[in-house]
Amino acid sequence: MCGIFGVTGSKNAFIDLYKGLKMIQHRGQDTCGIVTYDNHFNIKRAEGLVTTAFGENDISRLTGSVGIAHVRYPTIGKGGVENAQPVYTNTPYGIVMAHNGNVSNYFQLHERLQKKYHRYINSDVDVQIILNIFSYHLSRQQNFSFEILCDTVKKVFSEVKGSYSVIAYIAERGFVAFRDPIGFRPLVFGRKDDVTAFSSESVSLEAIGIDEYEDVKPGEVIFIDEKNKMMRRVLEESRQRACIFEWVYFARPDSVIDGIDVYNARYRLGEKLAEELKNRRNDFDVIIPVPDTARTASLACATKLNLPYREGLIKNRYIGRTFIMPGQKKRMDAIREKLHPIKIELSGKRVLLIDDSIVRGNTSKSIVKLVRDSGAKEVHFAVYSPALKFPCFYGIDIQHADEFLANRAPLDRIANEIGADSMHYLSLEGLVNGVGMGRKNFCTACFSGKYPQNVTKDDKSKIHCDRKRADG
Amino acid sequence: MCGIFGVTGSKNAFIDLYKGLKMIQHRGQDTCGIVTYDNHFNIKRAEGLVTTAFGENDISRLTGSVGIAHVRYPTIGKGGVENAQPVYTNTPYGIVMAHNGNVSNYFQLHERLQKKYHRYINSDVDVQIILNIFSYHLSRQQNFSFEILCDTVKKVFSEVKGSYSVIAYIAERGFVAFRDPIGFRPLVFGRKDDVTAFSSESVSLEAIGIDEYEDVKPGEVIFIDEKNKMMRRVLEESRQRACIFEWVYFARPDSVIDGIDVYNARYRLGEKLAEELKNRRNDFDVIIPVPDTARTASLACATKLNLPYREGLIKNRYIGRTFIMPGQKKRMDAIREKLHPIKIELSGKRVLLIDDSIVRGNTSKSIVKLVRDSGAKEVHFAVYSPALKFPCFYGIDIQHADEFLANRAPLDRIANEIGADSMHYLSLEGLVNGVGMGRKNFCTACFSGKYPQNVTKDDKSKIHCDRKRADG
Amino acid sequence: MCGIFGVTGSKNAFIDLYKGLKMIQHRGQDTCGIVTYDNHFNIKRAEGLVTTAFGENDISRLTGSVGIAHVRYPTIGKGGVENAQPVYTNTPYGIVMAHNGNVSNYFQLHERLQKKYHRYINSDVDVQIILNIFSYHLSRQQNFSFEILCDTVKKVFSEVKGSYSVIAYIAERGFVAFRDPIGFRPLVFGRKDDVTAFSSESVSLEAIGIDEYEDVKPGEVIFIDEKNKMMRRVLEESRQRACIFEWVYFARPDSVIDGIDVYNARYRLGEKLAEELKNRRNDFDVIIPVPDTARTASLACATKLNLPYREGLIKNRYIGRTFIMPGQKKRMDAIREKLHPIKIELSGKRVLLIDDSIVRGNTSKSIVKLVRDSGAKEVHFAVYSPALKFPCFYGIDIQHADEFLANRAPLDRIANEIGADSMHYLSLEGLVNGVGMGRKNFCTACFSGKYPQNVTKDDKSKIHCDRKRADG
Amino acid sequence: MCGIFGVTGSKNAFIDLYKGLKMIQHRGQDTCGIVTYDNHFNIKRAEGLVTTAFGENDISRLTGSVGIAHVRYPTIGKGGVENAQPVYTNTPYGIVMAHNGNVSNYFQLHERLQKKYHRYINSDVDVQIILNIFSYHLSRQQNFSFEILCDTVKKVFSEVKGSYSVIAYIAERGFVAFRDPIGFRPLVFGRKDDVTAFSSESVSLEAIGIDEYEDVKPGEVIFIDEKNKMMRRVLEESRQRACIFEWVYFARPDSVIDGIDVYNARYRLGEKLAEELKNRRNDFDVIIPVPDTARTASLACATKLNLPYREGLIKNRYIGRTFIMPGQKKRMDAIREKLHPIKIELSGKRVLLIDDSIVRGNTSKSIVKLVRDSGAKEVHFAVYSPALKFPCFYGIDIQHADEFLANRAPLDRIANEIGADSMHYLSLEGLVNGVGMGRKNFCTACFSGKYPQNVTKDDKSKIHCDRKRADG
Repeated sequence: MCGIFGVTGSKNAFIDLYKGLKMIQHRGQDTCGIVTYDNHFNIKRAEGLVTTAFGENDISRLTGSVGIAHVRYPTIGKGGVENAQPVYTNTPYGIVMAHNGNVSNYFQLHERLQKKYHRYINSDVDVQIILNIFSYHLSRQQNFSFEILCDTVKKVFSEVKGSYSVIAYIAERGFVAFRDPIGFRPLVFGRKDDVTAFSSESVSLEAIGIDEYEDVKPGEVIFIDEKNKMMRRVLEESRQRACIFEWVYFARPDSVIDGIDVYNARYRLGEKLAEELKNRRNDFDVIIPVPDTARTASLACATKLNLPYREGLIKNRYIGRTFIMPGQKKRMDAIREKLHPIKIELSGKRVLLIDDSIVRGNTSKSIVKLVRDSGAKEVHFAVYSPALKFPCFYGIDIQHADEFLANRAPLDRIANEIGADSMHYLSLEGLVNGVGMGRKNFCTACFSGKYPQNVTKDDKSKIHCDRKRADG
Repeated sequence: MCGIFGVTGSKNAFIDLYKGLKMIQHRGQDTCGIVTYDNHFNIKRAEGLVTTAFGENDISRLTGSVGIAHVRYPTIGKGGVENAQPVYTNTPYGIVMAHNGNVSNYFQLHERLQKKYHRYINSDVDVQIILNIFSYHLSRQQNFSFEILCDTVKKVFSEVKGSYSVIAYIAERGFVAFRDPIGFRPLVFGRKDDVTAFSSESVSLEAIGIDEYEDVKPGEVIFIDEKNKMMRRVLEESRQRACIFEWVYFARPDSVIDGIDVYNARYRLGEKLAEELKNRRNDFDVIIPVPDTARTASLACATKLNLPYREGLIKNRYIGRTFIMPGQKKRMDAIREKLHPIKIELSGKRVLLIDDSIVRGNTSKSIVKLVRDSGAKEVHFAVYSPALKFPCFYGIDIQHADEFLANRAPLDRIANEIGADSMHYLSLEGLVNGVGMGRKNFCTACFSGKYPQNVTKDDKSKIHCDRKRADG
Repeated sequence: MCGIFGVTGSKNAFIDLYKGLKMIQHRGQDTCGIVTYDNHFNIKRAEGLVTTAFGENDISRLTGSVGIAHVRYPTIGKGGVENAQPVYTNTPYGIVMAHNGNVSNYFQLHERLQKKYHRYINSDVDVQIILNIFSYHLSRQQNFSFEILCDTVKKVFSEVKGSYSVIAYIAERGFVAFRDPIGFRPLVFGRKDDVTAFSSESVSLEAIGIDEYEDVKPGEVIFIDEKNKMMRRVLEESRQRACIFEWVYFARPDSVIDGIDVYNARYRLGEKLAEELKNRRNDFDVIIPVPDTARTASLACATKLNLPYREGLIKNRYIGRTFIMPGQKKRMDAIREKLHPIKIELSGKRVLLIDDSIVRGNTSKSIVKLVRDSGAKEVHFAVYSPALKFPCFYGIDIQHADEFLANRAPLDRIANEIGADSMHYLSLEGLVNGVGMGRKNFCTACFSGKYPQNVTKDDKSKIHCDRKRADG
Repeated sequence: MCGIFGVTGSKNAFIDLYKGLKMIQHRGQDTCGIVTYDNHFNIKRAEGLVTTAFGENDISRLTGSVGIAHVRYPTIGKGGVENAQPVYTNTPYGIVMAHNGNVSNYFQLHERLQKKYHRYINSDVDVQIILNIFSYHLSRQQNFSFEILCDTVKKVFSEVKGSYSVIAYIAERGFVAFRDPIGFRPLVFGRKDDVTAFSSESVSLEAIGIDEYEDVKPGEVIFIDEKNKMMRRVLEESRQRACIFEWVYFARPDSVIDGIDVYNARYRLGEKLAEELKNRRNDFDVIIPVPDTARTASLACATKLNLPYREGLIKNRYIGRTFIMPGQKKRMDAIREKLHPIKIELSGKRVLLIDDSIVRGNTSKSIVKLVRDSGAKEVHFAVYSPALKFPCFYGIDIQHADEFLANRAPLDRIANEIGADSMHYLSLEGLVNGVGMGRKNFCTACFSGKYPQNVTKDDKSKIHCDRKRADG
C-alpha cells in the first residue's frame, strides 16, 4: 500500500503537495518524495515522514505549478531512498511518475524491457516497469497528442498485469493520470478554478480546498495539457474489483473511495457484526475497540446491541522501536508498550474486543492476554471482516498463506489459538453488503480466493521467491 | 510540564529508562535526556522525541545500573539542548538531577547563588537553581549520610519556593528523590526485587514490570544507598495542593496520580458535566468529543445523558508544521489540517462538542466553525473544567491573565465569542468533587485565584518579564 | 577543470576508484561521485572531498568490478550534488558517464536535444549534453557492436564542439573512453593483468599498481567488452591542441600528460625564466617561491642563476573560510591568513618572488605587500608563463577578458599595479619551448588569442551570459 | 600535543579565537572547542577541524569579548567530543579552562580529588585534574583577589606534577594564564590596544594583528581583571626545561618559541647536520627532503654542503583513510599514497634523504624503498635530531621505549634496519647548539634519558598501563 498525490495549475505546487501528502501519510511512512516542474524537474526523495523530510527551505527549491508526490509503505528488508518514488526518465520528453499498486508480471516485463526494449531498470520498484513500458511506447512516436497518449496507455493496459493507479507529468506536454481496468486501488480527482488534483484519498483534495471530486474510472486515462485543458477517455471497459480492504482498514475514515464513504462503511460493518452476534448479546458486559481503526465499527456494534462501549485500551503514540538487552532471551511483549489497559473497564467483566481483521494472530493473542491479566472474567474477540486465508497479488504484503491464523487451525479452534473464550469473524456476505450496500464489484480474494485476474503459476512463484522488491 | 523517570538497581538502567521515558513522552516533546552512572556519568541530551534521540548504539555507551531521565515540554522561543535535563555538577561528589515543576523565586535564588554561594548558573532552567542550592549546602558538610541528606533537603525546602518533584543520583553515595511540601507535581515510585524506580506517572513503572507503587509524599525525601537499602523521611508536614490539571488534561488516562486513577477521574468529570447539563438534555442530538483527551469524559457524559456518542472529528497524526506560501497573507486554518469532520455524524444535527478546557479560545472557535460548516444545525460547546482566569506560577505555561478567553468577555457572551450556540463550563465544585470524591487538597488557582503559597509581587513580575527561562 | 577515473576488470572497483580518485582530488574539491556496476548501477554523489564523502560502509554498497568516478572543480554560485557526476541514463541499455572538458555549443545542442531528439536535460552540466547526444544516436540502432559504437562517437565528434575527455560504462555491453580530436584535456590509460584503468592523470594509475600507461589519442575511442577484450580506433585525425596550462598549473608535478612529465616541464620553465632574467641576476639577493606550485620552477631558476633559493613564505593548510564580523567594513586580507612570511629570509633583501601565473593580480598584490611589510628592500615578481589576456572557451573559469591584470594596464605599468619593483612574464616562446621541447601542438589561446576552433559569436555570448552552468 | 588560544578585551572574541585557532590547527586535528563569555558561558566543542566544526551561525551564538579555545591532537582509541576542551566547572564562580601539557601524577591526584576534595572527574583528560585542583583551593577562599589567585596557582604548582601551560576565564573575575615552572610547553602572549591574547604559538597573535609578544615565563601567573588591568607574578623560580621537539617538529616554522625562531632553529639544525656530514659530502649527488617539515633543514644542509637540493618527493594532501578490501591480507603501503617520487631527480643518483626524526622506523623504511624503487643508485638517510630512545612523560605520545627504532638495533645496524646505505643522526650536542645557540635549558629526555623532574615508578607505570586517557 502506498499513497499518491498530484496537482497541476497550482499557485505553488510544493505547498499543495506537502499539505495533501500529509493527509495520506497513513498509507506509507517508509519513504516519501515530491517532484515539481518549473522548466526543470525539482526532485526530493527521502526516508521517513513527510514532516521530517521536507522543510521550509524546500519552498524555494521545489518551485513550479505542477508536481507529483508519493508515500511508501514500510516493507521489511528493502527500501531506502533508492526505492522511493516518484521516479524519473529523461526520454521521451522527461517524465516523472508515481503509482499505487502492484505489477504481478514484474519479472516477465523486466526481462522484456532489458532484452528487447533496451531500457535499463535500476531500482526494484514496480513503478519503474510501468514508467519504462509507458516511455518505450511513447518514445516510438514522433509526436505527442492525446490520441498518442491513449494508444500508449492502452499498450500499458495490455502489457502490465496487476493493479496500478498512476499519476505522471510529461515535461512541457502535460499531466497524466490513469487507473488500470480492475480499479483495484483508489484514485480520485477534483478541479477547482485552475487547479486540478489527483489523490489516493479524497481527504488530500479537501486539504487544498477542493471539496468536489469524483473517481478516475477503472480503465480511464485523464490528461491535462499545458493550457490546462482536460481530456479524458475510458480506454477499456471496467472490470472493477476494488480492494475491499480499503474500507476495512487501509483508508482514512474521512475519505470517500469509489463513491463509498469509509466511515459509513465501517459503521455499517459494525452493525452487520451486531446482527451476526445478536443472539449472543447477553454474553457480553462491555464492548472494547482495539484502537484506532476499530473504534467506528465497535461503537456501531455497541449501539446496535445496546451494550456499553468503553475505551478500555489506551494507545501509546510514542513507541518507536524496542531495544533488547544484550543477553536477554525472550522478546519483550511489544503490545504492552503500545496498549495499556484501563482496569476499571475490564476487571470482572465479560469483554467483547473488536478489531478490524486478524492476520497472523500474534497481536490478537497478546491483546487477549493483556485484557485477561487486567481482570476480565471472559474475553471474546470479534473482527468486522472474514477470515484471511489467501495471499494477495495486488499490493498487500500478505504473501504466505500458511502464515494466516485462519489456516493454522479449524475455525472452532481459533478462539483457543488466541486464548479467547470465543471468536467471531464477520461473514463474507456481511462484509460485501456492509461496504457495498448492493454493489458487489470488490476484490475479496484474500478472503474468498476468487482473484480478479487469472493468477499464473509464475505470478505465484514471484510472490514467494521475491524478497527484494518494493511495492508501490 | 515535564516528565522525570529514574531507576536504580537495574540490570540495565538505560533500557529501563528508555522504556519508561517513552511512557511519559506526552509530558514533553521538546528535549529529552538520559544519564546513567557506571563509575562515570554517561550523559546524553537531545532535542526531539525519545525514539528519535536514542538508538541501539546508546546501549553500549549509556551503561550502568542506575540513571535518571527527563522529557521537556516545548516552550516558545527558548530551549534547545542547552536547556535540556538532567543537569550535572561535579561538586560535591558528582551529582545529576532532573525535576518537574517550577521555582517561583528563581531570580532571588539566582542572585544569591552567584553573589553569595559563588556557584555559577550557566543555563536558564529552574533545576539548576535546585541543584546548586542542594549542592552548595551538601558541599559544606565534610561527610555524607542520610541525616546530612535530610538536612540538605530541608534547606532546599526552606529556600526554594514553588513546586518541584526531584530525582537525583550522587556518585558513589546513592539515589535521591524528594517532593516539595505542596506536592504540586506528581512523583510515584515502586520497588520490585532489586529495582527501584521513580516516575512522574505510574505507567512508566508498569512498563518495566513494577505493578505496585505508591506516591512520594509531599515534603518527603527518599534515599537508596549503594547497598540498595532504602531510607525515607517526611521532612515537612504536607501542605499538599496537587495541580488538578493533571487529571483534567496533563496525565495519561492509564496513570494513577496521588492515589486517584486519571481515567476514573475523567469519567466522573464527564458524569458531573452530565448532571449540570441534564436539564438541557433535549437540546442535543449527539455528543462529539474533541479528540484525543476528551473522549473519556464525553463518553461518560453521553452515557449518563443517554445521548448518542459519535467520533465526528478525526485527528490527523502527521501534521507537523504548516508552511505559508511566500506572499500569502492569511494564516491557514491549522485546525482543518488537524481535525477532519465526519459529515454524516454532524450534518443536520444539534451537536454538543466536549473538550477538556479552553485557554485562549482560538482553537475552540475554529472547531465550532468546522462543525458548523459540515452542516450541523446547532453547535454547543462544553468543557469538563471551569473557566481559566488566573495565571499559574507553578509550572503551566499560562502566563498572561488577559489572554484567557474567560477574561475577554462576560460569561454569557463567551458562546458568542467562539461562535457557539451555547457554552458550558463545569463548575469548580463539580471539578473538585469529580476528581477528588471528597478530597479537596488540590491547587485550583488557575480557576479560583487561590494560590497555595503567598505570591509576591516579585514572583508575578517574573512571570511577565521572563521570556528566556525554560520550565522543567 | 575536473578529474575522471574509471576502471574495469577490477577485483573491487570501488576500492580502486577511491584510491585513484584521491590522487586527482586537486583537479576538483566541489563534488565527487563514484558509480559501480554489479547487475545494478550503484551510484553515490556528494559534495566535498572524496575522503569525507566516502566511507567504509560504501564498500558493501558500491560493489562490482567496473565503475567510473569524478571530482568537480568548485565554481561560484552553482553546483551542489545535483550537478555532480557521473550521470546516468536508462536508455539505451543503462549508461553512466563522466567527463572533463567543456561543450562550447551547449545551448545549440540543448535545444536540439529537447526539441528534436526528445531527450530532457535535468541538470546544467555539459556532460548531460554529451551523454544524451551519445545515447540518442546509440538508441536508434537495433544492436550494439564496436562498429556501432564507433559510428555513435563519430556523431558525437561531429555534433559536440569544445573539449571533452569521456569515460562511460554501458550496462552489460562494456567500458567506453573517448577523447575529442583537439585533445584539449588529458586522458591516459593503462592495462595490467585483467585490470584496465583510465584517468585524467597518470598518478591515479600508479596508485592502483599500473606503472605503464599511454594516452588515449585525440579523436580515439577505446572499448573494453564484457569478455575484457579491448578494441580501439582513431575516428578522426588529431587536431591536437592540448591545454598548456596543465603543465603550468593544473596537473600534479608527478603526472605525465601527453607524454610530457609535468615536473620536468615546470623545471624547464624555471630554467627558461632564468635565461630571460640572466642580465638582471645581480638585481636579486634571493629567490622565493609562492607555494606550492611554483616551487619546482623557482628552484630551477635559482639553480640556473646561482642565486639562493629560500622558503620565505609558509602556507597554512587549515584556512577554510573567513568570517567577517558583523558591521566590519573592510574585508580581511585573506592572504595573511594563508601565507606567513619568514622574516629572516626577506628582511633587508632584494627578493625575487616567482609564481606560476597571474590572473586578476589581487593575490599577487597582497603577497608583494606582505613581503615588503616583512622588511624586504626590494620586491620583484616573475611568473613562468606569459600574460593572460584572452578568455578560455574550453574549460577554465577565466571568462571576462577585462578582469585580467594584463588587460588593465600596459606591460610597463603592471609592476606598479601590483606594487612590485619589477615584473617579468615568461615569453610565449619560452613557455612553448619549455613545455614542449620542440612540440608545438598546444592550445595557448588564453595567452595568444589563437583558438583551436572557430569561436562563434554565439559561443562567446554563452561565456558571458551563462551563470548557471557547471563545467565538468 | 595540543594547542591553546585565548583572548580578552576583544571586539568579538569568537572571530579572534576562530582566526587564531586555525593558525595552531597543526597542533591537533582530533577535536576543537571554543568558549566565550557574555554573562553566560557559550560553549561549543566538536570533533574534527576548526573550519569544519565552526560556521557563520556560531557568530551569533558565541558572543562576548572574552574566550578561550583549544585543539587536540589525535590519540588512538580514545577521544570523541567528551574529551574535548575547554572544560567547565560551575564552582567557584564559573570557570572555563584549557591546557597544553601532561599531568604525570594523574592517578594520585584523581584519587585525592574524589576521596578527599569531593570533586568528581567525569572525563579522562588531564586538564580536569588541573581545573579541579585549582577550583578546590579557590573555592575555599571567601573572596577573590590577585593575591588569592597567586596562592591558588602556587598550590597547583605544588600538587600537580608534569607540564602544563594553562589559560582560563573566571566569570566576572577575569582572565588567567599560568605556566608550570618547568616551562615544558610554550605559552606566548601579547597586548595591543584593549586586546590581550595568549597562544601556544606566536602565529596566532599575528593573525589577530598583535605583532609584539613575549613568553609567559615558566612559573608565572598572569591575570587580567574585568577592568582590563594586567597583573603578573613569577611564583616559582624557573626550572625551565623546554621541550626541544617543538623546534625540531611540533611548532610551525613561522613561530617564535621562548624567544627562539623556529625557522632559524631548523635552518641551523640543517647546518649542524652539514658539519657532521662534511667528510661524506662526495658520497651524495642530491639532497631530498621528506616533506613538509624537513624542507628548511634540508635546504640549509644542501646549501652548506654545496649539494643540489631537489623536491624529489611530492606529498598528496588528500589521503584521508585507506580502505582494505575484504579478504585482502597485506596492508597497503600507505606511504605510496602519501608520497610520490619524481623519478628524474632520483634515478641513477646517490640520494641523501633528510627527515626531522625517526620514531619506529616503519615510515623511513617505506620511503627508502620508494626512493630505491624509483631508480636511486644509493639511498642515504639523515635526521636532524638524535636517536629517540626514552619515553616522554610530559606530553608526547611516545610511550614504549622498545618501540623506538634506535632501541631495536645497534647504531651501526640501523641503516640496515630501514634498508638505507647509510644512516646519520644529528648529535645531541648539535641539536642543543643548533636550537639554543648557547642556551641549554631544554628537555632532551627522549634523547638523553635525563628527565627534568624525578620520574617515580608510579609515573612510569601510568604511561604503560593507561590507554584511556587523552593528553591535552
